[in-house]
Amino acid sequence: MDLEHLRELGQQLRVDAVRAADAAGSGHPTSSMSAADLMAVLLARHLRYDFGDPAHPGNDHLIFSKGHASPLLYALFKAAGAVGDDELLTFRQQGSRLEGHPTPRLPWVDVATGSLGQGLPVGAGLALAGKRLDRLPYRTWVLCGDSELAEGSMWEAFEYAGHEGLDQLTAIVDVNRLGQRGPTRHEWDLDAYAARIRAFGWHTVEVDGHDPAAVDAAYTEARETTGRPTAVIARTVKGQGVSAVRDREGAHGKPLPDAAEAVAELGGRRDLLVDVQPPPEVRAPEHPRADLALPVYEPGDEVATRDAYGQALAALGTARGDVVALDGEVSDSTRAKFFAEEHPERFIECYIAEQQLVATATGVQARGWTPYVSTFGAFLTRAHDFLRMAAVSGAKLAVAGSHAGVAIGEDGPSQMGLEDLAMFRSVHESTVLHPCDANQTARLVSAVCDRPGISYLRTSRDAFPVLYGPDEPFAVGGSRVLRSSGEDRVTLAGAGVTVHEALIAADRLAEEGIAARVIDCYSVKPVDADTLHRAAEDTGRIVTVEDHRPEGGLGDAVLEAFADGRPVPRVVRLAVRTMPDSATAAQQLAAAGIDAEAIVAAARRLVSATG
Amino acid sequence: MDLEHLRELGQQLRVDAVRAADAAGSGHPTSSMSAADLMAVLLARHLRYDFGDPAHPGNDHLIFSKGHASPLLYALFKAAGAVGDDELLTFRQQGSRLEGHPTPRLPWVDVATGSLGQGLPVGAGLALAGKRLDRLPYRTWVLCGDSELAEGSMWEAFEYAGHEGLDQLTAIVDVNRLGQRGPTRHEWDLDAYAARIRAFGWHTVEVDGHDPAAVDAAYTEARETTGRPTAVIARTVKGQGVSAVRDREGAHGKPLPDAAEAVAELGGRRDLLVDVQPPPEVRAPEHPRADLALPVYEPGDEVATRDAYGQALAALGTARGDVVALDGEVSDSTRAKFFAEEHPERFIECYIAEQQLVATATGVQARGWTPYVSTFGAFLTRAHDFLRMAAVSGAKLAVAGSHAGVAIGEDGPSQMGLEDLAMFRSVHESTVLHPCDANQTARLVSAVCDRPGISYLRTSRDAFPVLYGPDEPFAVGGSRVLRSSGEDRVTLAGAGVTVHEALIAADRLAEEGIAARVIDCYSVKPVDADTLHRAAEDTGRIVTVEDHRPEGGLGDAVLEAFADGRPVPRVVRLAVRTMPDSATAAQQLAAAGIDAEAIVAAARRLVSATG
Repeated sequence: MDLEHLRELGQQLRVDAVRAADAAGSGHPTSSMSAADLMAVLLARHLRYDFGDPAHPGNDHLIFSKGHASPLLYALFKAAGAVGDDELLTFRQQGSRLEGHPTPRLPWVDVATGSLGQGLPVGAGLALAGKRLDRLPYRTWVLCGDSELAEGSMWEAFEYAGHEGLDQLTAIVDVNRLGQRGPTRHEWDLDAYAARIRAFGWHTVEVDGHDPAAVDAAYTEARETTGRPTAVIARTVKGQGVSAVRDREGAHGKPLPDAAEAVAELGGRRDLLVDVQPPPEVRAPEHPRADLALPVYEPGDEVATRDAYGQALAALGTARGDVVALDGEVSDSTRAKFFAEEHPERFIECYIAEQQLVATATGVQARGWTPYVSTFGAFLTRAHDFLRMAAVSGAKLAVAGSHAGVAIGEDGPSQMGLEDLAMFRSVHESTVLHPCDANQTARLVSAVCDRPGISYLRTSRDAFPVLYGPDEPFAVGGSRVLRSSGEDRVTLAGAGVTVHEALIAADRLAEEGIAARVIDCYSVKPVDADTLHRAAEDTGRIVTVEDHRPEGGLGDAVLEAFADGRPVPRVVRLAVRTMPDSATAAQQLAAAGIDAEAIVAAARRLVSATG
Repeated sequence: MDLEHLRELGQQLRVDAVRAADAAGSGHPTSSMSAADLMAVLLARHLRYDFGDPAHPGNDHLIFSKGHASPLLYALFKAAGAVGDDELLTFRQQGSRLEGHPTPRLPWVDVATGSLGQGLPVGAGLALAGKRLDRLPYRTWVLCGDSELAEGSMWEAFEYAGHEGLDQLTAIVDVNRLGQRGPTRHEWDLDAYAARIRAFGWHTVEVDGHDPAAVDAAYTEARETTGRPTAVIARTVKGQGVSAVRDREGAHGKPLPDAAEAVAELGGRRDLLVDVQPPPEVRAPEHPRADLALPVYEPGDEVATRDAYGQALAALGTARGDVVALDGEVSDSTRAKFFAEEHPERFIECYIAEQQLVATATGVQARGWTPYVSTFGAFLTRAHDFLRMAAVSGAKLAVAGSHAGVAIGEDGPSQMGLEDLAMFRSVHESTVLHPCDANQTARLVSAVCDRPGISYLRTSRDAFPVLYGPDEPFAVGGSRVLRSSGEDRVTLAGAGVTVHEALIAADRLAEEGIAARVIDCYSVKPVDADTLHRAAEDTGRIVTVEDHRPEGGLGDAVLEAFADGRPVPRVVRLAVRTMPDSATAAQQLAAAGIDAEAIVAAARRLVSATG
């Protein structure tokens, strides 16, 4: 395609973006128009992609980090022959695959974007998969906005990709000068962006984003640059091509005032079809399998669930060649180090950058790998938005948060995962597990391996007695009744450390003549409703106890089992309602009112009040 | 204090850090020892601080962004005469102010740290308060680790402070080469850090962090540099001074193996007292007050609660000189623009950088200002860890999240706040409000102004009919019963958009002969337990309906009111259990099963099943 055709293609993309937004009555045509020439050149001259076979292992990857430019992406798909004009005009209508922001409902979209600052981090993960795991020559192209360069996550990604030398990654920065509500910090100061990005070890090229020849040369330079990623920093004009909106404030995120006039000014509708270059003939790596030999622990021995996590993960890595572990520079604490020692080629150190940690995993799983992510449960809150968006992407991620709750002891509240259950429960179609036992933990590490969606495994710092034999099965959605009799008058429901406290409490209550059922609710989501229903029918009273804030955790999960209109038992909830300071683990549990003594008192009160 | 004394002071800080960690049996002495000389020079020669008057408006601010170096901070307080040796040795004991990571339980600590990558962003907020709001000459000194420079939030802060020209801010980077589990990315490549930081508009100085004269000169250079902040990038050695741990891996986060030997190697215990320079005699700015004239809305008119938020905030800004508004480059959407237009001198644009947005607010409130933070509810998840830590700091923040739920319509799930209630409810001692009405919103904007802790206000994109008169009071913890009779057989509890749907549903149910009570649960935390108890007694059945994920939001909050052992009514919960795509607001509510029709069906089923 010669330069004149490239210009025509750029105009077509603008026209189609304008038409799509006009048909929808909403959307971001002006943000699409600035990047139209950038994408025209990419599609016609550089992208290698088989739109008929989106799973082809040699396909390049294209991510719109500025996801609001979705009309441009869909116009691009039309130019590639993947989407027809009729479908283009279904943009933003109910049932259409052409959503307001791109999601993998479209087979050519790897991951959902739309929360700014996430596409480049995930793209870096894809590029890392290509370089270190797949070892395939595909390139990852990420279209970035200039506004989103204010997000720290973009700089985590620049640092990460620069350090890893991801030369198959290209960031295309659409510097159109205008954000949502006005000018960006640096407007058209391309040097400001280039200096920053270069400082992180990238190669940079500054171009006029509306000059196809210059853009073409920049992409060629990017492809020829080895040892480091390249950023093509393009000066563009928002709303380029239509005088009514060109470089105008107040024209963000809305259809053009007169679409017909705009299309006319852009030279009218075109129907160019691009013959996109095919991907190279390569084969995806095979993922060898072997029998799984999970670690086994002796009942009565004291083992920390974080140790069991690391050991089980290492074993899983031996059994399955698709398993990858990622950690945020705390693998000695999370025990992901056990995996790293055995499978260094599939261990990815992400340093203290939890957003990039989750983003890398999201990128890696888009290529068919099975990532396990670990850091302290507390620090996973740093990646909340990335987890939320990973769910929109339909990503499959296993996430382990160590150092759960006040039971970590002296380090204090900054290090305590006390909000993690609430965060992960609210993630769409997530799984939330909180084992109390080493054998149980090992089983659950394996159980989530093929589970769709985001699975969270909460582990504890300190060692506790092994309760279960190594052959006991533990499924997602289950629970374990640890004490039970026909005389049970109250149910104690715990998870993790509070199971051990509940067992002590049950013994003490028995001495007082109060028979108590104890349930290990290791599966917080989905919670084992049947077992809870039975306990409610049998005992009429439930005390929930959790090393977590009172909101969003186990207490809420237990009550959710009764939110279908059935009779609800009487409930008392014990949880961490204080702001802990430094203290030993035992002192912390007591101060928070979630130790055996507090459980005994609550159960006794509940039974006597409703006896 | 001459150089020899500075060296001695550095050794004393090391000795005391070693002793404190030894007494505690845990802590981070080696991370303290690398920065001891840096802090000795700061305390003796540059810091201006009245330890007897920590609220003095002229005081400098010192933040340990590497909060795990708390033993060094407390040793510093001892050297300043603020803490005695006996208290120093209470480090990490229950009840001690000397916690594992610093918190404002100590009067000389502005904000809690310990989640890496937060101290510099908050320090930038303090420095901004000094420059733009207080207009006082205090300096903010932030001790940063090298590991935490992997966090994107640090680069948000570098970008923010560089752009704002915060020349009263100094970052002191303790480049000790070793992270928790091994070497950092750049080890002792100081130039790598300097190039990155300089690219963001900072002045940088590279020094030997164990050479007091060089450090002294660097701080002087920082103080003399105008127009931009300075980073002092110091080459240091982890565990400096004690051969058993010096520059050794595996010595992170634990007491020294032989504290007595270490103290001997460091030259023994010292008790130097530093005569810290006093702050300049300055006065804090006065915050003028005037009568509050909230906007008023006509019942029946259609008004979006985000509009009411912005207009009420502008009015509050007129009545109170301490109110500051901050936004993440979406003030046209959140309507914080109304404040920005009326009070530009107290509006802080943070661009698309939600972590820095919350961090700036946390810094600003530490100086006695009253910040209101706004962005889309969905994007506040990006700042989850900062909100969590702000609660540990005891910070007072009002946070408004706009574009709640599926009701935003076509933009799709990336823009929908669907997890925000769960996130904010789990924040310690938070307040969570979700008004459905413009007059109610205005009242609540004012109600949280003097409320301690983190207050969250959830606002909606679209306009809805005004239900309440402008004179109706709305308090935190309250609710409004909108429909009620002696024959009510079911209670419909909603908030925000679902209140309007519940009213329609109640009308339809009435036509079917089912009297339904409708409660506007605008205060999600604390929830109005009394009103819910009465409704439960009167109707025995509650249908909760919310434009939010089923976990952690209104449904959980309503049930929490019954978690004290009392009888619990039958409950059905309607919430967003699907992954929305693009559709109109009405289509979204229907697809999610939270519109009037779904409420009618749920209420009818519940009543007939339990009739």
